[in-house]
Amino acid sequence: MQAPVDANAVRAWLLTLQSSIVSGLEGLDGQPFLTDQWERPGGGGGLSRVIENGGVLERGGVLFSHVTGPALPPTASAQRPALAGRPFEAMGVSLVLHPRSPYIPTVHLNVRFFVAYPGAGSADAPVWWFGGGMDLTPYYGFDEDATHFHQQCQAALAPFGPDFHPRFKRWCDEYFFLKHRNEPRGVGGVFFDDFSELGFEQSFALTRSVGERFLPAWLPIAQRRRDHAWGERERDFQCYRRGRYVEFNLVFDRGTLFGLQSGGRTESILCSMPPVVNWRYNWQPEPDTPEARLYSHFLQARDWV
Amino acid sequence: MQAPVDANAVRAWLLTLQSSIVSGLEGLDGQPFLTDQWERPGGGGGLSRVIENGGVLERGGVLFSHVTGPALPPTASAQRPALAGRPFEAMGVSLVLHPRSPYIPTVHLNVRFFVAYPGAGSADAPVWWFGGGMDLTPYYGFDEDATHFHQQCQAALAPFGPDFHPRFKRWCDEYFFLKHRNEPRGVGGVFFDDFSELGFEQSFALTRSVGERFLPAWLPIAQRRRDHAWGERERDFQCYRRGRYVEFNLVFDRGTLFGLQSGGRTESILCSMPPVVNWRYNWQPEPDTPEARLYSHFLQARDWV
Repeated sequence: MQAPVDANAVRAWLLTLQSSIVSGLEGLDGQPFLTDQWERPGGGGGLSRVIENGGVLERGGVLFSHVTGPALPPTASAQRPALAGRPFEAMGVSLVLHPRSPYIPTVHLNVRFFVAYPGAGSADAPVWWFGGGMDLTPYYGFDEDATHFHQQCQAALAPFGPDFHPRFKRWCDEYFFLKHRNEPRGVGGVFFDDFSELGFEQSFALTRSVGERFLPAWLPIAQRRRDHAWGERERDFQCYRRGRYVEFNLVFDRGTLFGLQSGGRTESILCSMPPVVNWRYNWQPEPDTPEARLYSHFLQARDWV
Repeated sequence: MQAPVDANAVRAWLLTLQSSIVSGLEGLDGQPFLTDQWERPGGGGGLSRVIENGGVLERGGVLFSHVTGPALPPTASAQRPALAGRPFEAMGVSLVLHPRSPYIPTVHLNVRFFVAYPGAGSADAPVWWFGGGMDLTPYYGFDEDATHFHQQCQAALAPFGPDFHPRFKRWCDEYFFLKHRNEPRGVGGVFFDDFSELGFEQSFALTRSVGERFLPAWLPIAQRRRDHAWGERERDFQCYRRGRYVEFNLVFDRGTLFGLQSGGRTESILCSMPPVVNWRYNWQPEPDTPEARLYSHFLQARDWV
């Protein structure tokens, strides 16, 4: 399993992916993303591409980071607790987009590569793994959008065998779940972590395939919903539901907690926070409304393909 | 140290405190608080008093809860990890108020009582402790408000000896600190936890003294700032800074995490979330503005008395 790894190749691909996603999104939005290059005092750095108050995107970030450190935080690997505390290298591209229109779903993509090095004096080989996935969070859902997104996820994984899509789809449903609300975050997608079982070359190829499916998975949805008219009611519901995104990311999301624990760049990590969020006490949608349908129809784990 | 405890007396006082605080706040606001009584499937329940869209309070909750459970969550006691997993009883009153005016500070109060019972077959005595405190989070600060609040905290603790106030004030500065921002949450106040050193009667008396100082500490501040005019600029800054409150409570606050982990009532626990919150990328106040002064003058640990 522990074949030679080529971290430079992963890094080069991540930067290319970031650049091509930003180009695609600028084409949709009409406004440019700003660019912030940063260095991390503890080692490594990143390149943050951010948009605020765009034509379509109210706020969004497409973030590359590559950090090294002397001690892997416990949040880095849920399944390999024995690696906590080892010297590590972590790189990835992470993206969250909050469109202004309540008819365009919020979307998240992450692809990442970790290497945990043996402690001083150990002759063990480094342990490495890939992780990633993408998932969709509608406010006012459309079956065809959810189906399209899941079909693209399925197509990304199909070349590697028929089992990956159902497995990673289920993993996504389990991971993006708000226990304290007993509610999924959205309609899901795919999620994988601690992934090295195909060897380096094919595990990397699978991760590339997922990352490169992001634009075909999300852009057509944004394009067909961008001119759908909305008003105060839809905006209120969107801002209320965005609260769930905040709750998930700050309480549960391993990537966010890893970033904050490992001394990552706070303004980049918290790019996933929505621009405007509302909380209301004990609010429930009226029965038989489009808002109620989000809960009854879309926030239910189901087979969308 | 393990004198007989009277949990019923603590419970009765907590309910009286909740009621008198709500009365005082209704007098300020002009609008009534709603009342929600709830039961927890795992044992216990609570009484939530909540206001939204009031005359002064944009959102606020004064929450009583009394829960029992078979296994103390690890967040319950930072200093007594050996007690995690024991049968427990926890009761408290918790309050967060988000005024609409950016000139009235957000405020938080909590008083709580925990008992951890010995595991089955053990002859150990129950272990109990009190905790609590209050702290102030201004957006546009006033020295006299910060000083008044801290004077009231000091007065609450003075009858129990001269050392408690400096100790609990420093503990508050340490606890309400956003590590990922390198920023205190506000101007502080007092905080204590795992407190039993005065024996049950006097530890309870100290906790009562803190809780009963809440109205004299905060009401005069709200009253003298409520008619101060504000506009879009002040509102924007308030909504931006409220993001820090969300970040602290969801990432760091032990009370919030304890509530969510112990199967507490989510809508009550998340009453601390502000009604409207904004996040902006990498925003910094212009030098020599009132907004910059919040950072340079108020968000600095100092002796306000």
